[in-house]
Amino acid sequence: MSTKSLRQSQLFTKTRREAPADEVAKNAQLLIRAGYIYKNMAGAYTFLPLGLRVIEKINTIIREEMDAIGGQEMVMPSLQDSALWEASDRWSDDNVDVWFKSELKAGGVVGFGWTHEEVITDLMRQYISSYKDLPKFPYQIQKKFRNEMRAKSGIMRTREFDMKDLYSFSATQEQHDAFYNACSDAYMKIFHRFGIGHMTYKTFASGGAFSKFSHEFQTLAEAGEDIVYVSEAKGVAVNEEVVKEADLSELGVTEGELEKRKSIEVGNIFSLGTKFSEALNLRFTDENGEEKPVIMGSYGIGPARSMGTIVDLLSDDKGIVWPESVAPFKVHLVGLNLDDASIRDWAEGIFDNLTDNGIEVLFDDRIEARAGEKFADSDLIGLPYRVVVSKKSKENGTFEVVTRATGEVRQLTETELYADFDNNPNT
Amino acid sequence: MSTKSLRQSQLFTKTRREAPADEVAKNAQLLIRAGYIYKNMAGAYTFLPLGLRVIEKINTIIREEMDAIGGQEMVMPSLQDSALWEASDRWSDDNVDVWFKSELKAGGVVGFGWTHEEVITDLMRQYISSYKDLPKFPYQIQKKFRNEMRAKSGIMRTREFDMKDLYSFSATQEQHDAFYNACSDAYMKIFHRFGIGHMTYKTFASGGAFSKFSHEFQTLAEAGEDIVYVSEAKGVAVNEEVVKEADLSELGVTEGELEKRKSIEVGNIFSLGTKFSEALNLRFTDENGEEKPVIMGSYGIGPARSMGTIVDLLSDDKGIVWPESVAPFKVHLVGLNLDDASIRDWAEGIFDNLTDNGIEVLFDDRIEARAGEKFADSDLIGLPYRVVVSKKSKENGTFEVVTRATGEVRQLTETELYADFDNNPNT
Repeated sequence: MSTKSLRQSQLFTKTRREAPADEVAKNAQLLIRAGYIYKNMAGAYTFLPLGLRVIEKINTIIREEMDAIGGQEMVMPSLQDSALWEASDRWSDDNVDVWFKSELKAGGVVGFGWTHEEVITDLMRQYISSYKDLPKFPYQIQKKFRNEMRAKSGIMRTREFDMKDLYSFSATQEQHDAFYNACSDAYMKIFHRFGIGHMTYKTFASGGAFSKFSHEFQTLAEAGEDIVYVSEAKGVAVNEEVVKEADLSELGVTEGELEKRKSIEVGNIFSLGTKFSEALNLRFTDENGEEKPVIMGSYGIGPARSMGTIVDLLSDDKGIVWPESVAPFKVHLVGLNLDDASIRDWAEGIFDNLTDNGIEVLFDDRIEARAGEKFADSDLIGLPYRVVVSKKSKENGTFEVVTRATGEVRQLTETELYADFDNNPNT
Repeated sequence: MSTKSLRQSQLFTKTRREAPADEVAKNAQLLIRAGYIYKNMAGAYTFLPLGLRVIEKINTIIREEMDAIGGQEMVMPSLQDSALWEASDRWSDDNVDVWFKSELKAGGVVGFGWTHEEVITDLMRQYISSYKDLPKFPYQIQKKFRNEMRAKSGIMRTREFDMKDLYSFSATQEQHDAFYNACSDAYMKIFHRFGIGHMTYKTFASGGAFSKFSHEFQTLAEAGEDIVYVSEAKGVAVNEEVVKEADLSELGVTEGELEKRKSIEVGNIFSLGTKFSEALNLRFTDENGEEKPVIMGSYGIGPARSMGTIVDLLSDDKGIVWPESVAPFKVHLVGLNLDDASIRDWAEGIFDNLTDNGIEVLFDDRIEARAGEKFADSDLIGLPYRVVVSKKSKENGTFEVVTRATGEVRQLTETELYADFDNNPNT
């Protein structure tokens, strides 16, 4: 994404009137029609230039927040050696029903990674031997493969998708808890920066053998395939298992205060205890010379699922309404009357000036498209600000600026325009 | 890679005295020992934080040069629908011997993409219908899977690897040729920016049905598994097929002028003609209303193979010698006498100042490691400049600066230090 601005005439994609008939999810319908994604097959999508820009903005936000709490980025392979997974008893298809596996021509079978606990635990044996090596927080944004019976909900549940997965390695429970809480806070920051924080709840879920609760981050949405029980007043959410099994009073709510809502799981954090470090023999020597298994945690966010959730929440009947933080460009500069060379030259100058001012601009410089078509495309693509450059704006010396989210219309002079966008660059 | 600088004490990797016994390739041995990569299994490697930084610098150079000639980045999926590949007769294992395939739980078989001609041709049917839509140059940096009988040469030939693959779509042969030549020039720029341009030859190879020649970019290296025939004097290289089959006189050389050399294929460009557009029915209407198949080309570079080639060429018996363009950090700030708090505080200040001046710094802030160990690690890791901060440098008011590539030693004051690195920031 080294290009700051782009001319629409050069973009190889186009908007489409209709999404494919087999695409029922609203997020995918809008993203396909606007030219962000292409559906290759059930559960596998292409991220087109506009879509890749959104994903990269999402990834940048995730990276900034993970680095801020001590995360270190790396990237592990997809191909999986069965031996590691046999050690944790997760190789068999009886235990894990989402494996893709394939014959190796050199002999044997390989799996395609659907998560990476075993791989990272094996790898960290190289680098952890003493309490002085702890804590450590490696993460990756890497492709997972999951052999789902049904791919559904557009880009929400696919058979291959990038995931940000961070793994924590701690010497003590206190070290683990401190990072777990820091990561939980970082996740809420991330969802707020995505523009979906106000609808996203840190949700109590079952914890497994090593902690009473784990946590999901659930965004309330009609399109969700999950169910959560929420008290908006108390800011508490729990999942179905917790309603049934846990003592709600320790969470400060009663069952009667909880409302059943549909939701999308946009992230989760999990205390793994010593499950994987014991299975794969990842040990360290503590301050007293005693050998112990490392305490682990895992922390996931799906960038594409986040993108789908943003679209589901932030769209209207005309199209997508991107928040500035993840919009592929900040400004949609829509050129009219461009068959007139003097208007075209002048519009090109405005485009250059905006770009030189550090503003990311998509310039609809198409000469043949009609005004109505351009405005409909602009609403569908959904950039935060639409600025019209036309014969009229050249004559008047002012530009019509429409804020996509509110519909607010302003008339700004060229100076006001740069000042307005300069105050808040989205780079 | 949002972090500009890093403290070595926080890095979760460490240097290793020995590479794994089964790792024979020099590039992988050095990269493993220095903590850039980890070997998960034959043909599958992890890129650790230092290694990922190198890959991202390589990718940034590739992106800049591809964008400069009109490339547009996107990313296609790995999972492959057999129907597309049956259309081009490349699904059968009899015709293609590197497929990984897997059963889909929902029924049927999927492949894992080893290249993407079929996928991009299918996709472009959505967006190309007229000569006005041409030419277009989509590209991706995306993971390929190849079921190689033998994974070898370290990170040079693996079973999964990222590839930059660009595909060109043209209306006329002239349009195609213009881009083919522009991309060839861009490739040489890329290899020069990687620091291996002086050893890399645009090499004539067989062209297939649609052009007399295709071109490989071959870097002369003893570790190479390819063979090229080179006239250094005339700046011409050809591969074995061309020596046997083509008329060398039209390339301006005789067989006697060509020297047989080992080499590494770091890139290739290929005219595909209408092979895929005919098989998958990608057509456009020309200026006269006539329907024609689109003329295609493909253009590949492997970032990890480039990284391995750089290491093979640019290393000595002490370790790696990164060129500034792809070094994970520009400066290795090596702290000595850090058990003295006054030295430590002062060294921290130098680290902060370098970072604030926009210099990417790896700070060896480890307190317990001995000086000899730190210098050996620094040579192995191979950053362009080593700067020592010690009791002696604090007292003298000068810093020892060693240039890794030349061994040149300079004594610079703090002011001279910032000025020296400021002149040439590597960001």
